[in-house]
Amino acid sequence: MSLIATPQTMHFPEVLPLQSGASIRDYQLVYETYGQLNADKSNAVLVCHALNASHHVAGVYPNEEKSEGWWDNMIGPGKSVDTNKFFVIGVNNLGSCFGSTGPKDINPDTGTVYGADFPVVTVEDWVNAQARLLDRLGIGQLAAVLGGSLGGMQAQSWTLQYPERMRHAVVVASAPNLTAENIAFNEVARRAIVTDPDFHGGHFYQHGVVPARGLRIARMIGHITYLSNDVMNQKFGRQLREGLDLKYSTQDIEFQIESYLRHQGDKFSTYFDANTYLLITRALDYFDPARSFGGQLAQAYARAQAKFLLISFSTDWRFAPERSREIVKALLDNGRQVSYAEIDAPHGHDAFLLDDPRYMGVMRSYFENIATELTKEGV
Amino acid sequence: MSLIATPQTMHFPEVLPLQSGASIRDYQLVYETYGQLNADKSNAVLVCHALNASHHVAGVYPNEEKSEGWWDNMIGPGKSVDTNKFFVIGVNNLGSCFGSTGPKDINPDTGTVYGADFPVVTVEDWVNAQARLLDRLGIGQLAAVLGGSLGGMQAQSWTLQYPERMRHAVVVASAPNLTAENIAFNEVARRAIVTDPDFHGGHFYQHGVVPARGLRIARMIGHITYLSNDVMNQKFGRQLREGLDLKYSTQDIEFQIESYLRHQGDKFSTYFDANTYLLITRALDYFDPARSFGGQLAQAYARAQAKFLLISFSTDWRFAPERSREIVKALLDNGRQVSYAEIDAPHGHDAFLLDDPRYMGVMRSYFENIATELTKEGV
Repeated sequence: MSLIATPQTMHFPEVLPLQSGASIRDYQLVYETYGQLNADKSNAVLVCHALNASHHVAGVYPNEEKSEGWWDNMIGPGKSVDTNKFFVIGVNNLGSCFGSTGPKDINPDTGTVYGADFPVVTVEDWVNAQARLLDRLGIGQLAAVLGGSLGGMQAQSWTLQYPERMRHAVVVASAPNLTAENIAFNEVARRAIVTDPDFHGGHFYQHGVVPARGLRIARMIGHITYLSNDVMNQKFGRQLREGLDLKYSTQDIEFQIESYLRHQGDKFSTYFDANTYLLITRALDYFDPARSFGGQLAQAYARAQAKFLLISFSTDWRFAPERSREIVKALLDNGRQVSYAEIDAPHGHDAFLLDDPRYMGVMRSYFENIATELTKEGV
Repeated sequence: MSLIATPQTMHFPEVLPLQSGASIRDYQLVYETYGQLNADKSNAVLVCHALNASHHVAGVYPNEEKSEGWWDNMIGPGKSVDTNKFFVIGVNNLGSCFGSTGPKDINPDTGTVYGADFPVVTVEDWVNAQARLLDRLGIGQLAAVLGGSLGGMQAQSWTLQYPERMRHAVVVASAPNLTAENIAFNEVARRAIVTDPDFHGGHFYQHGVVPARGLRIARMIGHITYLSNDVMNQKFGRQLREGLDLKYSTQDIEFQIESYLRHQGDKFSTYFDANTYLLITRALDYFDPARSFGGQLAQAYARAQAKFLLISFSTDWRFAPERSREIVKALLDNGRQVSYAEIDAPHGHDAFLLDDPRYMGVMRSYFENIATELTKEGV
C-alpha cells in the first residue's frame, strides 16, 4: 500500500545568486512531501535526486500505473525511511525538466525560452535553492539530508554550506568529485547531444525538434556505466535477440544487450531535456569541495558538523567504494562521527536504487536510530 | 635506426567464401614484410592487427615524419621480435580502410562503391584471407602468429582453423570473446555513426560527406575504454585546460580530459572509414570460438596444436586478465604447452602497444626461444 504523492510548487520571486556569477529570479521549485512534520519541526528528511530523477521520490500518483517514486522501495510508511516517523521532502532541482524552472521555461529577462541560455547551475546552487525552500517550509534543521550518486554530492554539500542545518547526512554511492574517466563519459554524452544537428546550439525548441539522436547515445553510455560488468553478463551475456542464428549485420540488432540499450535510449529521448542533460552532467563535473583547499578533502570537511552514514557498493565502478572511503577518511581526520557500509552487491552503480536487503537493513537501522535520538533528546 | 617499410599489394581474383554465407572476389590485400624469409621458409611471423591499425606494423616510410609502424617498438632489427632472425609479415584486413579491399572500394558485381553493402567479415574470414596470402608467399608453417586485442583473436583463430600452420601463437591483451559490456560499447559507437545524418545508410560516399560526428563519438568512447582509470587520473585528473578558473560552460572545454578526447575524435574522423568501423566492431562482437561447442572453450581448443604465449595487463578492463586466464585454462585442459604473463602495468588496454620493459622482456625471451628452437630442430 503506497502513499499517494501530490506534487506542489513554490515560486521564488527573489534573485538567487549562482556560483558562476550569474543569477536567476522568478523561478519555481516542484516538490513532494510524505509523512507529517512534527510540532517542533525536527523530523524532516530532505532527499536530493541524481541525474535523471525528480522530486517524485516516493508514493504513487492516483490512477497512474507504474508511477512509484524512484526511492519508493526505501521511503514510505513502515519502510527503511519510515514516513510514519519522518517528514520526507523530495525536490526537483533548478535546471531539471520535471517541473522546477529549467531550460524549457521562459526567461523572464527576455520573454523567450531559456534553452542554452539557462545559467550553469552547480551542486552548491541547488543546495542554496533547497535551503530557501526549507526556509519557506519553516524547517530550520533537518533530521537528515539524504542522497545517492549526484544526490549524495548535494548531501555532502549541505553539510559544508549549512553545517548546522542537519543532524545527519546520508551519502549513498557517491564521491568527493568525479574522476577523469567520469568526466570523460559525461563529455562524450554531451558531445553526442551538442553535435546532433537537431540541437541547434541549444535552441531546438524554436525549431520544433529535439536532439533525440544525441540523447539516445548519451543515455546508452550512461546505462553502461550504471551497470556492473558482472550483472551485464548475467542479465544479457552474449545472448542473441532472436533465435540461435547470427544475422551477420552491422546495423540490425543481434545481441540482447543492444536491444536493451536501444530501448533505454529511445525511451529517454522522448522525455528528457537535452539542455538539462548538459547542465546536470556539468554540475557533476564541477562538484569538488576540496578544490578551494588545494585538493585537501579533510580541510574542506573541517566545517562539517553532521553525523554521517556513507554507503557504497562493491561493483560500482562509476562511484567506486574507494571514493566513499576518501570521504570517510576526511571525516575521521576531523574527528567526525561516521558510519560506513560497503555493500557487496552485484548491480554496479544502480545498486543504490535497488532492493538489496543488507542495504535496506543498514538504512532502516540508521534511520531508526535517528528517530530514537530525536525522541530521547526531545527535539 | 628503423627499417624502411614498403607496402605491397596482392590481388586475389578467386572467390573467398565468407562465414555469413556471402562471398567476395577480386579483392586485394596490402601487406608489408620485414627481415628475410630463410631458405626453408620456417622463420615467418604473421602479425594480425586490431581495430584501427594496419599492415604497417614496423619500420618507417621514407621522408615521412612520425611514420613508425604501430608495433615498431617491439618489431625490428635487434628488437624483441628480431627481424634479423624472423621474417615478419603485417597484413591489412579485408574491410579495413588502409589499402586492402573495403567499403570504400568498387564492388565488382555492381561497378559502384560497396559502402554499406560490403559483406560482413569475421575473424575467421580474415584468417582465411591471410592463409591465402601465406599460400601465395609460399609459407606453409609460421614460426608464430602474433596479435594484440582483436589481433589476438585472429591469432587464436589461426590455431583453431589451421592448427598445423604455426608452431607458436602469441596472444596479447585479448579475450575468448567479448563480454556484454564490450558489445555494449561497440553498439553505442555504431549507433553514433549510423544515426549521424551524414551516414546516409552507409552510402555517404556518393553524397560527398562523411559521418564525422558519429566517428568522433565512436573514437571518444573507444579511447575511454583503452585507458585505465588510474592512468587517466595521472595524465589528466581534474586539470583544467586553461588557467585555474572555471568558465561555467556546458559546451566549451573546461577540463584537459575533454580537450584530449575531442582531439582524438577529430583526428580519427578525418582518416577512418565509418563502414569499416561498423565491420570491425562487429567482427569483435561475433568472435566466439566456444559458440559451436555450447560455450565450452576447452572443447573449442581441443583442435589447437600450437604452443602459446598469452600476455595480459593488470589494469586492462576492456580485455581483463581474467579473460586471458580463461584461454590459459582451456589450453591447459587440453594439455597444451602454454606460457602466461600477467604484466602489472598502469596503462589499461593501451599497454599492449606501449614500451613496458617487463612486457618487452617477456616477448624478447619468448621469441629468442622460438629462434633457438628453429635452429636446434634445423627447421
